[in-house]
Amino acid sequence: MKSHWLTALKRLQKQLPAGTLRFDERLRREHAGDKWFAASLPDAVALPRSTHAVAALLRLANARRIPVTARGAGFGYVGGCVPVQGGISLSLIRMNRIKEINPDDFVAVVEPGVVTRDVQEAVEKLGRFYPPDPASRADSTIGGNIASNAGGPRCLKYGVTRDYVLGLEVVLADGSIVRMGGRTHKNKTGFDFSKLFVGSEGLLGIVTEAILKLLPLPPFRACLAVGLPSMRQATDAIRAIFAGGFLPSALELADAFTLAAARKRTGSRLLAGCQAHLIVELDGQERSVRSEAKQLEQIVRSIGPLFVQRAYGSEQCEKIWQLRREFSYALRDTGLTKLNEDIVVPRGRLEDLFRFTAGLQEKHGWPVACFGHAGDGNIHVNIMVDLQEPDAKKRCDAALDELFEQVLSLGGAITGEHGIGLAKKPWWPRAASPELRRLHQTVKDALDPRGILNPGKFI
Amino acid sequence: MKSHWLTALKRLQKQLPAGTLRFDERLRREHAGDKWFAASLPDAVALPRSTHAVAALLRLANARRIPVTARGAGFGYVGGCVPVQGGISLSLIRMNRIKEINPDDFVAVVEPGVVTRDVQEAVEKLGRFYPPDPASRADSTIGGNIASNAGGPRCLKYGVTRDYVLGLEVVLADGSIVRMGGRTHKNKTGFDFSKLFVGSEGLLGIVTEAILKLLPLPPFRACLAVGLPSMRQATDAIRAIFAGGFLPSALELADAFTLAAARKRTGSRLLAGCQAHLIVELDGQERSVRSEAKQLEQIVRSIGPLFVQRAYGSEQCEKIWQLRREFSYALRDTGLTKLNEDIVVPRGRLEDLFRFTAGLQEKHGWPVACFGHAGDGNIHVNIMVDLQEPDAKKRCDAALDELFEQVLSLGGAITGEHGIGLAKKPWWPRAASPELRRLHQTVKDALDPRGILNPGKFI
Repeated sequence: MKSHWLTALKRLQKQLPAGTLRFDERLRREHAGDKWFAASLPDAVALPRSTHAVAALLRLANARRIPVTARGAGFGYVGGCVPVQGGISLSLIRMNRIKEINPDDFVAVVEPGVVTRDVQEAVEKLGRFYPPDPASRADSTIGGNIASNAGGPRCLKYGVTRDYVLGLEVVLADGSIVRMGGRTHKNKTGFDFSKLFVGSEGLLGIVTEAILKLLPLPPFRACLAVGLPSMRQATDAIRAIFAGGFLPSALELADAFTLAAARKRTGSRLLAGCQAHLIVELDGQERSVRSEAKQLEQIVRSIGPLFVQRAYGSEQCEKIWQLRREFSYALRDTGLTKLNEDIVVPRGRLEDLFRFTAGLQEKHGWPVACFGHAGDGNIHVNIMVDLQEPDAKKRCDAALDELFEQVLSLGGAITGEHGIGLAKKPWWPRAASPELRRLHQTVKDALDPRGILNPGKFI
Repeated sequence: MKSHWLTALKRLQKQLPAGTLRFDERLRREHAGDKWFAASLPDAVALPRSTHAVAALLRLANARRIPVTARGAGFGYVGGCVPVQGGISLSLIRMNRIKEINPDDFVAVVEPGVVTRDVQEAVEKLGRFYPPDPASRADSTIGGNIASNAGGPRCLKYGVTRDYVLGLEVVLADGSIVRMGGRTHKNKTGFDFSKLFVGSEGLLGIVTEAILKLLPLPPFRACLAVGLPSMRQATDAIRAIFAGGFLPSALELADAFTLAAARKRTGSRLLAGCQAHLIVELDGQERSVRSEAKQLEQIVRSIGPLFVQRAYGSEQCEKIWQLRREFSYALRDTGLTKLNEDIVVPRGRLEDLFRFTAGLQEKHGWPVACFGHAGDGNIHVNIMVDLQEPDAKKRCDAALDELFEQVLSLGGAITGEHGIGLAKKPWWPRAASPELRRLHQTVKDALDPRGILNPGKFI
């Protein structure tokens, strides 16, 4: 650590409540990375319990140009919270109170460190619903979800985290505290800055409180799980579902390689011969959901599936989703390293994508497992790599290059829900035009003129 | 006009296609205001047909510090496009092409000058759905809707204009052209600037193209129209509907004064004795909608309504909405001037609002007519003013002062869908904290350092 940083931080440490700013190596190691490969040791770890402590930290950091990299639970997939230039790793994990759930106003007011599932369970007890459901929701925090604008299967019908943020309290780089938005479900007072801070990956400010929008809790859900003999039939089924005027709450797809791995792991005989697997979920009033599930089953059966499983009610639905969760574990069982790229293509280009990934697999000799949020065009393309092979790293990069080029040329995006972080940083210049990068730089310079917030990332 | 502006503009006029930049007084008068009271003559009117013409105009305007105030069809309610400092009124009305509707990708690519209803009708022919439905949708443009983040009754279920903007082409103050977002339904590539430009009231850049998100077209709709003997019963009904896990596509409320005026205009005997009127709309699959309409009718009947009308299918529903549209005309028939304030309160504070407006009515002796999007807490509070009365203006301002103070103290917002413009500018400092205003100024200065875009408004 630069010695003048240390002196300043030690002084600040005494001004803050005990335990807020710490330097012990074990803790610093625990705050060096997330679920991605990269790690970098911070010089200090801050664990504030209040907005004012965050503001005090930032005032000092800004004055001394000390990097500050915010983090939630560290469940990101792209190294977004890796403190690549050292400085302070600012964990919001202790600011984990649900300050208020107001079922009449349909809002929850929460601190950033609260775990997403805890919010969901608390509001559901009151008959309310917070839809965003990233796979990590049992571990990740609302603050992390906000930083990365987390998605999940239910985005198809309900939208992403950004759509549920009505208001924020943000500490800016200079330590000033700004409250924006509020607890109304509509608001046209000035610019909607909340929407800009959501998804800004810790580069523009530190979120210290969020006012979340809640919906009435849909009383019932149903799922169909469908095995299909080809990927083409899966995309036909998706098209037919939309053509029927359905907007399911989820529409998830898995490919043959994923299914083979899942079959091996779970011993499921049902999956034999399946080249594609769809999960369609509906929610709403029980009678409607039951009748629509039947309609959907008819639509799907007309495509010629290998099987259709029906699940009514939460308990049965969860069994279907359990299989979906096994997909990730099953891929890990292969012993290969999974490069999970959450690319997105326009909804009509799914077949083009699958045709391309099949070719990629052939060309590089590595399996490519695709599964994910087909309804959104947001497919997790997992290149399964044996890192022991010679030139593995170089070949990985070449394969990813080709993948991202193709996705962009299809009008797609290199990330749908994980963010740029470090993982996608090399492709940022290709994904964003010079004009768009200049716009990012302009706004970054305006809000963080000394560049202390999460430096070393895509801006 | 400042003479050096004129020289520069005349020179530019020759470089642009004929008719792009005009100085005739009739045209300038037509571009002096919108649906609000204020008007201010621009020095020139620009009617570009291309992004490049917009860019050329802005480059020059920026170099010469000539104000540029963008406008769509001029159907705003807050004077947002009044060119208060003269300069150029930049009308996007000739950039009115629907460039593409892609039903497979679920996107429409449009120029800003296209009328919203035209987009809706075009996409519906292809079985797709563009939900935002401001009352002005037959007249207002997508560009205007984007500038003001237009809402409408269907926002309750479907969200506002911002939620349907996937990507934008924007010309910045310096004339540079930036494309942001794209045609994927999810995108986490960098900051989501589109969402910031939506609702920025022409202060940050000029939108020259938008990629809109489309949904599958719900095949059926149904409405209930409910007359109630008291406002309290109306808010009870709303609460009961949400408690049942329903999120209707619209939930509209009108108060006694509005109903009395509507009764006078339409001769409807049905409305006799009604102190409140609700419209509840559902959409989706026909069988579901019919069954849910019955459920809703049961819920509403348990509250003790004076009548419940049912409407199944678009044709019948439109008749119900026709009554809703008459409300505005009916208020105009009173001969009084309607100060339409689109305030919002947290959903749970509707009764407090109505109690307050009743008091306001008593205190100032002017009728206050409330109707609007009750599901969102977004009520159009219409203070009905006789401008011939002595001190009318002063008393108006005093009444509005009290209204906005009360709304803010309820945790509400002074505008839900119309924007700040000129109409709400006096209350901007009370609606936004000094820190929030500073943040607005910082971003404005970064993107428009010479302050040429829509100067004289809230920043």
